[in-house]
Amino acid sequence: MARGQRTGPADAITDVAGLRVGHAHRTGGGWRTGTTVVLAPPEGAVGGVDVRGAAPGTRETDLLDPRNLVERVHAVVLSGGSAFGLDAAGGVVHRLADAGVGLPVGGPGECVPIVPAAVLFDLKRGGEFRAVPDAAMGAAAYDDAVAAPEGRAPAAGAVGAGTGAVVGGLAGGVGSASAVLADGTVVGALVAVNGAGSAVSPRTGEVYGAQEPLDGEFGGLRAPSAEEVEAWGGPPEARLAAENTTIGVVATDLGLTKAQAAKLASAAHDGLARAVRPSHTMIDGDTVFALSTGPAGAAGAGPAGLDAFQRVLGAAPDVFARAIAHAVLAAEGGPHARSYRSVFPSAFPGGGAGSGPGGGAV
Amino acid sequence: MARGQRTGPADAITDVAGLRVGHAHRTGGGWRTGTTVVLAPPEGAVGGVDVRGAAPGTRETDLLDPRNLVERVHAVVLSGGSAFGLDAAGGVVHRLADAGVGLPVGGPGECVPIVPAAVLFDLKRGGEFRAVPDAAMGAAAYDDAVAAPEGRAPAAGAVGAGTGAVVGGLAGGVGSASAVLADGTVVGALVAVNGAGSAVSPRTGEVYGAQEPLDGEFGGLRAPSAEEVEAWGGPPEARLAAENTTIGVVATDLGLTKAQAAKLASAAHDGLARAVRPSHTMIDGDTVFALSTGPAGAAGAGPAGLDAFQRVLGAAPDVFARAIAHAVLAAEGGPHARSYRSVFPSAFPGGGAGSGPGGGAV
Repeated sequence: MARGQRTGPADAITDVAGLRVGHAHRTGGGWRTGTTVVLAPPEGAVGGVDVRGAAPGTRETDLLDPRNLVERVHAVVLSGGSAFGLDAAGGVVHRLADAGVGLPVGGPGECVPIVPAAVLFDLKRGGEFRAVPDAAMGAAAYDDAVAAPEGRAPAAGAVGAGTGAVVGGLAGGVGSASAVLADGTVVGALVAVNGAGSAVSPRTGEVYGAQEPLDGEFGGLRAPSAEEVEAWGGPPEARLAAENTTIGVVATDLGLTKAQAAKLASAAHDGLARAVRPSHTMIDGDTVFALSTGPAGAAGAGPAGLDAFQRVLGAAPDVFARAIAHAVLAAEGGPHARSYRSVFPSAFPGGGAGSGPGGGAV
Repeated sequence: MARGQRTGPADAITDVAGLRVGHAHRTGGGWRTGTTVVLAPPEGAVGGVDVRGAAPGTRETDLLDPRNLVERVHAVVLSGGSAFGLDAAGGVVHRLADAGVGLPVGGPGECVPIVPAAVLFDLKRGGEFRAVPDAAMGAAAYDDAVAAPEGRAPAAGAVGAGTGAVVGGLAGGVGSASAVLADGTVVGALVAVNGAGSAVSPRTGEVYGAQEPLDGEFGGLRAPSAEEVEAWGGPPEARLAAENTTIGVVATDLGLTKAQAAKLASAAHDGLARAVRPSHTMIDGDTVFALSTGPAGAAGAGPAGLDAFQRVLGAAPDVFARAIAHAVLAAEGGPHARSYRSVFPSAFPGGGAGSGPGGGAV
């Protein structure tokens, strides 16, 4: 963690000016899944992607190849529902087109919204195999994002794409974090954590991604008791029959080229590598998108620009790992998985009965 | 064109045993677009993809990276509608899941259908910008494929994903072709031709992809008169405001590894390079999928296997180019573009008033 960093006001991806987040989800009656949208400003954000897991489910990722034409994306959709959940992106595409937002291709108002998407596997976590997000759920997540006041911190835990998430046998979810670098550049991340690996050390019971907090963001979080670690017994062995996947977005207000955005997405995967162990496995479809809201290509101009980009690349893994920790700490448990808080109450001031994110939920 | 080749019985991708094709489309009332599905056998086909155009619109292509887990795909969807048209794949995914076809991931009947997809740009070719394929159109194309008798040649011309297609200013469409190699291996292709480049030589008026016919498949097709070439004046210059894209599938009954399937998709792009000039431009999203229905990996076993694969790689560009020629020759004209047959009647026996595919249509 570089010196001189602090969290943004929301400690969330929404600290990157212009980005908004919305969730939609459904639980009960066989359901436990949802969709999250990260909405760019109407002019779009320069986009990149790195697909590093071996079981990905994606949409509109090929256009993000830096050799290709389209530079700007208008939203990124993260969803539960495995391959079925890719339909959620269609709901966002149509909502954006209704709003006149997209790549202009014809006359006035005629545009094609660019909405890359990735999905995670949460089928049957609510009981019903085919209870999956659709276009309407994507549209609802969009509506939630549009209704958000500028800078609103997105809800964390078992919400949106993280509603049915499980990581290493414990409840996963959505988390977000941000860092304001010494030069004023903002880096933010949002992630839906559902990896086959563990976000918690089997040796110490500590949340890997919380090792480098900024500004005391994790409260008085501490290593849990040896008794709780022993009682937990560590994460279950990942089986090939199970599918998983961690998906997320890293963003900055530094102006990047499209190729730099792809590089930024790669850097965030290093944060995933630290915070979920192992990650990027054969049964994970781990995918990270990158968004740059700044003036296009500003960072690429000269040595000073490269230095600024280098600092963002250095910060991105930390921010992404912290977002993962927030997801795990906020995730409520349920019939699908126990929460970190319920397994390790001694990690929290007051023994886990506190009022923090996910507080007290089983 | 290697010696000893002949067309399959249908001269179409359906000569690869187990593959079926269905179309759905809508014209009139502002519409001119559609969707085509290539349906694999229920156990799936080993899949590959090569995205070579710079403006692609795709879904589920990342899982086809040979490093990744999923080997078999259950259908490939080609659609009009630009990014909006990706929703058509969702209709096919749900139909397949209803039929119990997909990657098994849970209990009996619980499976995730793997349906990669690519789209072409045909917005407003029927007048209305947002008259685009949706999940219901994908489902209708699936139903058409399921209803097809084994080996039925797919309809060609302005059907399915090629309904609103234009190539080099002339009507494009869907075409298919096949070759049976001397060793009995079958190679087939299906393509929706909508490229920014031209499928017709500005110098001679000949259809590039028809240069190497098998078994007289193009009838008495000949070079058109110099007067007709002069009157045509060549294809319009491609403009960056316009978007285009040729998408297709190449298939074989030779058993391939997943990496070989990706290589086969690349080989088919060489046929596109010959038959549409230029192709793979900044305003094309040219994407080719490959399907292998044979025993997985059979071709990779030893020198004999590699020889067999080498022959398939040699045949694929020819078959893909011939499929493109069939598309252009069958494509009916309309308000969106004139047909090849109407511009070059002298290329056809009887002066273009014949009864061949697309015969007489303007």
